[in-house]
Amino acid sequence: MKTTGKAHKKIVDRALVLANQVGLEGLSLGVLASDLKRSKSGLFAHFKSKEELQLDVLREAMDRFVTLVVKPALEQPRGEPRLRALFAGFLDWVGGRYVKGGCIFMALSSEYGDRPGPVRDLLVESQRTWINTIARVVQTAIDEKHLVADLDPMQFAYEIVGIGMAFKHAHKLMNDPKAETRARTAFENLLARNQSKPQPRSHKSA
Amino acid sequence: MKTTGKAHKKIVDRALVLANQVGLEGLSLGVLASDLKRSKSGLFAHFKSKEELQLDVLREAMDRFVTLVVKPALEQPRGEPRLRALFAGFLDWVGGRYVKGGCIFMALSSEYGDRPGPVRDLLVESQRTWINTIARVVQTAIDEKHLVADLDPMQFAYEIVGIGMAFKHAHKLMNDPKAETRARTAFENLLARNQSKPQPRSHKSA
Repeated sequence: MKTTGKAHKKIVDRALVLANQVGLEGLSLGVLASDLKRSKSGLFAHFKSKEELQLDVLREAMDRFVTLVVKPALEQPRGEPRLRALFAGFLDWVGGRYVKGGCIFMALSSEYGDRPGPVRDLLVESQRTWINTIARVVQTAIDEKHLVADLDPMQFAYEIVGIGMAFKHAHKLMNDPKAETRARTAFENLLARNQSKPQPRSHKSA
Repeated sequence: MKTTGKAHKKIVDRALVLANQVGLEGLSLGVLASDLKRSKSGLFAHFKSKEELQLDVLREAMDRFVTLVVKPALEQPRGEPRLRALFAGFLDWVGGRYVKGGCIFMALSSEYGDRPGPVRDLLVESQRTWINTIARVVQTAIDEKHLVADLDPMQFAYEIVGIGMAFKHAHKLMNDPKAETRARTAFENLLARNQSKPQPRSHKSA
């Protein structure tokens, strides 16, 4: 919606990086104007309100996530290869490869847990879409008989989300050099437990 | 440190609840004074700075977590019973049974990921202590031969943290009625995979 125009896009891009540092509530038009060396009134020409800016930032993040993580994974063969690609892209996203500061959705989950309104609604929608995307890819792996038939794709998706959140915690807050290895090990464990043919357990980290 | 005195304690208690809503950075002495119907100068008699208030709030949360989650679990028999009690207490904590608003540590993880300073340092220390506590309890389960000998306790702790974070996400942001069932199922899966005697898989949600 209305995220057209180069100047508009440049503002939203910068706002996305800032939001990862200060949250979307901390992202006032004043802060953004000062950061971009523009006048606050100039920004008001692009966004009628702080909320409109927040929604545009979130939409931009959702677009990037689909373009950088979801679409490339969906180009992989159905089943386990697609699931592996989806997880690898998710880790890259959370690790900050695409947006400096890492996963804005996780940052906002805490900020908007208790804050009703359109921003929270859009955030919930983004997360519902993501969880359903994981579950659908898991379903292709069941259909291809890569994963066992009695697996609950939504439970699998829940566990993937957890591995990603623990990765952010270990990587960004704890500066744990093993963060990525632990995330990959957790994923392999989850996969191995649900693969159609019994696999050797693999729970040790490198 | 200095968290003595009834008035001081009352302020910190209220600040802990507010911090869960607005973050520790949003917790200015002005906001708190207005909430408590006290003068800002009155609060300055208790805390020399906002940072001192933030550190006291975090220390209070750490004390409560130890008292309400860690200590009761450590009174359980070594091994799997203790590990189960620790996880159950963790879920209660994250679900908001003890502090309205849920897990302040998770809320602060996003807020302080990029914000160096004494508050972040104390938060990291609290999380390191927690992860090490889980790992030590896992080690008792290995020693008691409830869990397999080649299990990496730190990997197990990482996965527990992830289950708890996904629980907060599902429970608080997504209002998922299955949030708790999914968390317990994920924990049972993790346990079953690492139990000394092979257990039937249990990955289906209720």
